[in-house]
Formats: sequence, C-alpha cells, structure tokens
Amino acid sequence: MPDPAGLTPAAARRRIRFVGLDHDAECAGRETIFQGARRAGVRIVGACGGRGVCGTCAVQIAEGEVELLQPPTPHARAQLAHGWLRACLARPRGDCLVEISPRSLAPVARTEVAGAAGTAWPADPAVRVHEVALPPPTLASGRADGERLLDALGDPRVTRVDLAALRELPALARAHGWRLGVCVRGDEVIAVGAPGRRALGLAVDLGTTNVAAFLLDLETGGRRASLGIENPQAGYGADLVSRIDHAVRAADGALALHRAAIDAIGSLARDLCAATATRVQDIVEVAVGGNTAMHHLLLRLPVAQLARAPFVPALAAATDVKARDLGLPFAPGACVHLLPNVGGFVGGDHVATLLATADEWAAGTSIVMDIGTNTEISLVHAGAITTVSCPSGPALEGGHIACGMRAADGAIERVAIAGDRVEVRTIGDVAPVGLCGSGVLDAVAAMRGAGVLDARGRIRPGHPAVRAPDGRRELALAPEVAFTQDDVRAVQLAKAAVRSGIDLLLREAGLAEPALDRVLIAGAFGSYIDVRSAIAVGLVPALPSERFAQVGNAAGAGVQMALASVALRARAREIAARCRYLELGALAGFQKAFLRRIHFD
Amino acid sequence: MPDPAGLTPAAARRRIRFVGLDHDAECAGRETIFQGARRAGVRIVGACGGRGVCGTCAVQIAEGEVELLQPPTPHARAQLAHGWLRACLARPRGDCLVEISPRSLAPVARTEVAGAAGTAWPADPAVRVHEVALPPPTLASGRADGERLLDALGDPRVTRVDLAALRELPALARAHGWRLGVCVRGDEVIAVGAPGRRALGLAVDLGTTNVAAFLLDLETGGRRASLGIENPQAGYGADLVSRIDHAVRAADGALALHRAAIDAIGSLARDLCAATATRVQDIVEVAVGGNTAMHHLLLRLPVAQLARAPFVPALAAATDVKARDLGLPFAPGACVHLLPNVGGFVGGDHVATLLATADEWAAGTSIVMDIGTNTEISLVHAGAITTVSCPSGPALEGGHIACGMRAADGAIERVAIAGDRVEVRTIGDVAPVGLCGSGVLDAVAAMRGAGVLDARGRIRPGHPAVRAPDGRRELALAPEVAFTQDDVRAVQLAKAAVRSGIDLLLREAGLAEPALDRVLIAGAFGSYIDVRSAIAVGLVPALPSERFAQVGNAAGAGVQMALASVALRARAREIAARCRYLELGALAGFQKAFLRRIHFD
Repeated sequence: MPDPAGLTPAAARRRIRFVGLDHDAECAGRETIFQGARRAGVRIVGACGGRGVCGTCAVQIAEGEVELLQPPTPHARAQLAHGWLRACLARPRGDCLVEISPRSLAPVARTEVAGAAGTAWPADPAVRVHEVALPPPTLASGRADGERLLDALGDPRVTRVDLAALRELPALARAHGWRLGVCVRGDEVIAVGAPGRRALGLAVDLGTTNVAAFLLDLETGGRRASLGIENPQAGYGADLVSRIDHAVRAADGALALHRAAIDAIGSLARDLCAATATRVQDIVEVAVGGNTAMHHLLLRLPVAQLARAPFVPALAAATDVKARDLGLPFAPGACVHLLPNVGGFVGGDHVATLLATADEWAAGTSIVMDIGTNTEISLVHAGAITTVSCPSGPALEGGHIACGMRAADGAIERVAIAGDRVEVRTIGDVAPVGLCGSGVLDAVAAMRGAGVLDARGRIRPGHPAVRAPDGRRELALAPEVAFTQDDVRAVQLAKAAVRSGIDLLLREAGLAEPALDRVLIAGAFGSYIDVRSAIAVGLVPALPSERFAQVGNAAGAGVQMALASVALRARAREIAARCRYLELGALAGFQKAFLRRIHFD
Repeated sequence: MPDPAGLTPAAARRRIRFVGLDHDAECAGRETIFQGARRAGVRIVGACGGRGVCGTCAVQIAEGEVELLQPPTPHARAQLAHGWLRACLARPRGDCLVEISPRSLAPVARTEVAGAAGTAWPADPAVRVHEVALPPPTLASGRADGERLLDALGDPRVTRVDLAALRELPALARAHGWRLGVCVRGDEVIAVGAPGRRALGLAVDLGTTNVAAFLLDLETGGRRASLGIENPQAGYGADLVSRIDHAVRAADGALALHRAAIDAIGSLARDLCAATATRVQDIVEVAVGGNTAMHHLLLRLPVAQLARAPFVPALAAATDVKARDLGLPFAPGACVHLLPNVGGFVGGDHVATLLATADEWAAGTSIVMDIGTNTEISLVHAGAITTVSCPSGPALEGGHIACGMRAADGAIERVAIAGDRVEVRTIGDVAPVGLCGSGVLDAVAAMRGAGVLDARGRIRPGHPAVRAPDGRRELALAPEVAFTQDDVRAVQLAKAAVRSGIDLLLREAGLAEPALDRVLIAGAFGSYIDVRSAIAVGLVPALPSERFAQVGNAAGAGVQMALASVALRARAREIAARCRYLELGALAGFQKAFLRRIHFD
C-alpha cells in the first residue's frame, strides 16, 4: 500500500505531465499514476477503483520510467505489447510524461442530457410562492415578525417559519417595505424574499455512473435546463459493490462518497443556475431518485447491511430532509425529497421509471426493465407489480470489457459481420478506439449470427478476424480494438442474470413469454441497443418487435414528475408500495434458471 | 483600537501574571490587560464589556508598568489614589504582575443552584422510551430497518425516524439482537439504543448574568442534579444593550454570542452528566427559558430590531429546534424546546416564572415581578395578564455601582445605620470587599431612614461616615467600601423605572395599590432583598408584609416544569398568549410617572 501522502518527504515527489492535457499531477512517495492523477483531478477511468483488476485505466509512458506493482496478467501482457499499461499498477520512478488511452479518459465536459428545455410537467408543486404585505409593527402592536408573517398569509394550515428562513425575515421585511414573496411548503414557510421571487426546483437522477440534473420552474412545471456529469463517486469504483466496500472499510470512506454525491449535485445546480441567470438560493425544492445504495450514501445512512444477506435497506419510505442538513446550499428551508426504495437493490430510480411509464403499463401484462450494472425488472400483471434485481455487472455498459469505453466519440456502437468482413460504426464517425454498451451487444449478436461463437459461447477459429495473440481467441474489430473470449463470457453472465430474472418473474406469475404485451426498456444503454441484437443474444424474450419500447431516461423523467407534482409524488409512493420485491437468491430454482440461460439458444 | 493579535510581532507580546491565580495571560501589541486576560480565560468582571465606563474591572499593578488609554474620571481618580485602575484602560509596557480586585474577580467555581436534587415534577414528557423487539430480516422479508422499527412500535401516530437516529439504527439493532430502547417524540423516533436506555432531560434557565441547568430523569420527572455558571456572554458586556450592540456591530459578533451561549449549555450538560455517571447522548430533550435577546442569540436570530423601536422580536411563539442544528451534542434527534416570548423585552423566562407561580396568582389581584437589569412585571387581575418591561439597569444587582460586586464571600448584603455607626453584614462573614444587590438596596434604605439622604436623593453632610474624598459625597461602609452619590442616583433611576411600571399597570387596570392581594418577587436578587428596604426606597408599594412572597428562582422552576410535562408546556403557551404586552414608552404619562418616582417619598 502506498504511504499516506502526508508522511512522504518532498524529495520523493514525482511530477507527471499528460499528453494533450493542460494540467499536471504529482505522485508522492509510493503513489501510483492512477492515484496521483485522481488527486490532481485528472480523470482516468478506473472501473474497479484502481484495484488492478479491470484494465480500464490504460496509459502509455511517453517519457520516464515506471515500476509495476504486479506481474502483468495475460490480457495486460497483450496490452503491454502495444505499450499500454494500467495506471493503477504503475509507480513512477521519476518525472514522467504519460499518455492516457482515449478509451480511458473520462469525459470532463458536461453534457446536456436528453430532453429539450421547455418540456413542461403537470405543475402541482410542494412549494408555492405567495405575495404578502405585512402590516408594519408599531409600539402599540409589536407582534413578532414571524407571527405577523403567518397572520398575513392567512392560511391556518401554515403554522411555522423555518428557523433559517426566519433568520433572514427581519432584515428582508424592512428592506422591502414589508412586502415579500414567501415560499410555503406544507405547514411551514421555508423561504422569504423580495416580491416576485422565483421558485425553482431541481430534479436529480443520481445514477451509479452518471448524475443528471434538471432545473424546473416550479410554478409552471416548465424545464429551464438540464445537465449531466459522471458521478464523481466513480473514483472509488465503478460498481456499487466497490463503493460499498470503500464506504465500509476505508476511514471516512462513507463520508467521502457522501461528499462526492453532494458535490455533484451542488456543482450541477451552480452550473444550471449560471446558465439560466438564476441563483442556487432560488431553488426551493429538490427531488432525487437513485438506487438504494446511492440513496443511502447521499443521506449518510450506513450501507454495510446492503451488501450482506438479507440485503436490507435502512430506509425505504419516501423521505424529506432539509437540504442544509446534507450540506446543500439552496433556499434557507429547502427540502430534498427522496423517492421511495423498494428494497436493498431496487431503489427510487426504478420507482421513477415506473412512474414515468405508468400510462404504458397500466393495461395488460408488461415488463419494465432498467438495464445497468444492476438490472431492475418489474412484471406488471393483473394489477400486481413484482420486482427483482439482477446482478448483471458492467459488461452491458462497456465496463470490464477489454476494449470497453463509455459512449463517446470513437466508441463502436454497431457491429456487423458480413462474410469475412467485420463492419463497425463509431459514435462521431471517427476512428474506433473501443466499444460502448450497444457495440458490445451487437458484437456478440453478430459473432453468434456468423457462427463465430458456438452455443456455449466459445470463439471458433476459422474466421479471418479471429486471432489468438496470447493463446486466447479474440475477434479483431479495428486495428487496436478486439473483442475477447473473456468479454464474451462477461456478456453471457450478464444476459443470463437478466433473462433468468425475467424467467422467474413469469414463473411466479404463472405466465409464459407470449403473454407479455409490452417490454419497456429504460436507461441510457437501453435507449441505444438494437433490440434484434438483444433478442439474438437472449437478453430479452423473442417477441414481435412492436411489443418492445425503448423509453430512454425514464428515471430522469420520473424524478422530474415527482419534483413538479405532489400528486405524482403520492403516485410514486403508491407504486413503490405495490411493488412486491423478490430476492432472486431466495427463489427456488434460481441457480438452475441462471445456468440454463448462460448458453446461447 | 488594538491590532488584531495575528498581526502583532512576537516581540511585542507582554506576559501578565496574576497574584493568586495559577495561570498567565499574554498581551499582544496594543491589547489591554482586560483583553489579554479575557483571551486567556482569566475572568475579570467587565460589566460594560471593556469600554472603560463601568469601573468593574479594577486591578492593581504589583510589578511592571502600564500606560492608560484615557485620563482617569473623578471616580477612577479616587480609585487610582488607592492604587486601583481599570484593566480595560491599562496597556502593559512590559511584563507585569497584576492583582485583580476581589470584587472584580468573576467566580470560576461552578455552583450548585438552588433546589435540592431529588425534587420531582409532574412527569408527562415530550419524549418517551419504548422497549421493542424487531423481527429479524430474512431474504423473504427484507423490509427496511426503519420501517420494521415503526411496525414494531405499532403506534400509527409514529410515522418517521429522525435521519441521525436512523444512521445508528442498523448497527445497533444487529448488535443488540434486534431488541432496542426507542425514544419517541410526537410522530418521530428521535433516538435508539440498547434496551433499558435512559431518557434524561436538560432544563436551562438562560439568564443574562447566570446560566442555570437542571438534569431531570424524564420518566419520573425527578431531578438528578443542577449547576450554574456565569453566562460567558458577559465577556461581551454585562447588559443586553451592550451585547446586542456587539452582535450588530462586530464582525461575527452575533456568532460569538451564539457560541458562548451554546458553549455554556454544552459544558453544563457535560459536567452534570459527569457528576451523575450519565452521558450527554442520554439527554433526549432540552427546554430553555431566557429573555427575548438571549432566546434570539441562542437561535442565531437577528437582534438589531430588538434594540430599535418598536422593539419587535423575530419570533415569539414557543418553538422546537433540533439540538444538532444549534451545534449541541445530545441524542441524535433531540429537540430544544424554547418557551414562548411575550414581546421584545419580555421573554420565556418571565413566562416560566408565571408558569411556576400560577397557583399563587390564580385567584385575586397579583403582581408578579422578575427583578433584574430589565424588570418584567405582570399584573394579573380579573383573569387578564398585563405585562411591562422596565429598564431598571444593573444597579439593583450591584452592577455599575462603585464598589458593587456579585453575591460572593465578602459582599455586603445587609446595611444598617444606628446613630453614628454604620453596621454591615457580609456573605461568609468575612471582611467586606464590596456590595451585592441586597446590600445596595439596604444601603439606600438605611441612608434614607437615618436622614443621610434627602427626599431628592442628595447625600447630606453631617453623619460621621459621610465623606467627600474628591469633592463628591459618599458613605463609608468599610475601609475600602463606600456608597457614592452616583450609586444613589443609579438606585433612584432603577426604582423609579420599576415603580412607575407598577403605577402604570395599576392605572391601566383602574386599580389602586391596596387592591393588590399578592406581590410575588422572583429572581436571585428578589430572593435576598429585605422587603422592608424595598418598601423604604419606594421600589414596591407599601403593603402589609404578608402580601409579599419572595419566590426564588421561579424561572428555573418553570423551565423544569416545561421540560417535564407537555401539559405544562401547553399551559406556558396559554399563559404567554394571555399576556398583553404594554410598551411603557408608548403609554401616555410614562415620563411623568417615572419622574414622580425618582424622588423618595
């Protein structure tokens, strides 16, 4: 283990420059390049959190020397042959110039998320603005400012003023001639301001990989702007298990993950407000949907019990907390509403997806699935909702794949095999540098369709693009991009997890696949896949294509709905209460169902 | 103004030792002895906050040299003649050895406050402890810990778990085999612990001069212990006006006063828990009564408007805030209940006094008065309560009196003039070093009775104890203790303020003095005065002695009652709502009534 940076003499520091980046890092003592880069804010992808297992932090040493912490694995040896090594296993011997692989460079640019500004949701907000005029106090009538404000509101249901809002009231009332714009939430005044004050809301889709935020005008339900960033918790591991592990084991680990989530929300809010010429103090209500671990880390609830059977959340019910209690800088008494969780592995993000797609599953028998590292699947049948969570792993999103990368320029998103030729299409139509999730699924489907894979998933020799550089077969997709036997195995595990989940949901309901009227596929990955490829690899049942709908970021839409409307918030609670959660591991025959789906049909 | 300490070269620091004290101070740059001492925690009384006006920070320079910031006033010149000077006007030229006048040394010892441990109040607490056994979670039933706890409580009124309590729940439930002691407040679980956990309450009488705290067992209402300290805000001025001034003018002044109050409550709680072998985390509820300025400073509410007509509080209603929001370290979700204020100058402490004395004023016509720097007076008549606040100043408590001091050993508490002899009695029967409040009142009464004072309050020559060291007459009470013409004037102003308040209350009610069935005198000063002296100087009406009752620290008793019982808390709210506050300055004839009471009868 590297020494803590504080104990290292200055003489032991090495300067690391990066090709094409305009800022440097410093490695202190026994720090690796990955650690030094992370500390300096240079975002190298590290899907496993820098534990040397995933190979997603590929770098080349242009100048200088490094020592390796572990002997290279076979795949790492193949990388080394091309001059690439893992930043998390490389310790600089002196100053270095480092080139980060394009597929390992995390996006730093903030991206507009799907959905145009101007979309409007039904407005029935938790916070409403009232314009009031208070009678000025006199010596004969020196009633307290807070009570005079409540009198002026004249609503017997409003009985108190938030303490932080009250601290601002005396000066504001006197500065504005006793005319105020007053934000009321339930029985409480949560903010006061000048007449005509704005009431903005922030909806946050707190995903494991990405965090998307949507700024809404609460009075109209109209969307002002939206923005997405990588979840900065990714520095502690790409998947939930790595992060829970960090939270449980590292000193202040849970606090670091909490702060990373808070920082993400705070910086999205600041950027959204800057872009719309508003102030973060104008944000009077926040709604957040995330999976249960994200939810717990955000609230600083313990997560150890989430990772151990029987995988129990500390809290499932929808909850409201003061934003200031989380260290968020909004209006004085602003609340954060967290959508309810269903269970340890089915969180408010899936509830949000169900809320956003409710019209589509209201009638008939439907599957609603959020495909990700954990894939949540609900079967809606005869008025009942049954939900499972499948540990599908990151392969379907391009994670833990030898040449996997995020959906960015240069990522292969489509693969076809036409005879001897392998045809690929990349995002941005530039030279291929890796594969993103939809490319991964296409690659397996194409290999299976062309007979390059056998039913058990073994890569067959014979096709000109199949090679075996270190004795392990792989399909060359581009000069530096290959799809390996290990990658095929990862996809098999993922699709078996998802498909056996569907199998067991249908079995529990006494249904067969043709009974499904609708299959709704939500999420970023789900938006871009070719459903024919998903059927070809066996990820989803072979149903007529018109029964499938790719519904995009439904979780984000659902969180916005819960922000805009208390009636929809109540509906989300009803949906969560209706969900019967099945723990796959506790179901008879789960192992058998899983193994049955490992192979291709 | 002195330089900020941080900018001063080390060479400019002077070391100050104190005779009889075991720790030193350091004066940096242009700091005075008062400032250096205060920074070092050496508590020199400084009634005016070190502004050079009150003369309560008398010191003698035993070794070393000082320079004076101002030419001495006539009274200071008299002090100088005896070698005494004001620490707030003395800047050391080098290292010094300083002797603090016994009457200027603030008590550092913590004192047991009045009322024996073991007193029990009617127990009907806001927080109750329930012992519950939760069904352990299983894979088939993975309901969230929080919801399982609410299920196990089985009370539909309890619907939520405080976030900070919830953070502790998963580990505690598993550590204690799913058996827990659960603290419930209203609809919320505020703390969990092992079975058999304690529920303690802390009642705080937050006075301008002293802070008293009482540790109660909430289940029985029994008092475990009590303790009092000087209010550490005294370092910023003895009276409310000085403190409000500091809060409004100094950078972070309000924050410093807030923190001083929080520190006082926190340290009293720690000491009380240490003395009773309990933990501050066992404190699940706090009740606080203080005047309106103390209340506002504690809550960090703005105070500027309290000091300007029409003297309006930010908040008067009783309020509950989470202890953690104030930075207090009690049980996770513990609340602080603040008793309601009546107006800008009548706070929860007077409401607590009214609560504690309710049985005594329930029938007939009564005056209830809390004598202090501000004297709150309520007239209860025909079911109505009318309340005024009189700016009586600190003289009646021995403040701003030439030889005034706190009620401590050596303080003259009784004065009589028998012919040519002046007889005094001191607390502790030791040599006199100054006068406390009851001695001040006695001195004036005795001087008036012996004809040493004329009706207008002038000291007459002729009595052997009357002298005029600097041309101003004074009565010598002891070798180093005198009562001066200025002191007489201060008492005249105080008694005129109080008495004209009583006059106007009676006038508004259409009553004459003989209509008063009871006069209840509360507070530390009120407990020790000789009512005959109070009548003699004209502080209170000349009624038969059996109509007077000195009720001790009724405010402290009332706060304990509000802590112990929600029914009594509700009664306090009713009492506050019944109080009709009259602003003396707004009443016709106030100035005339005041001037009429300046003289002696």
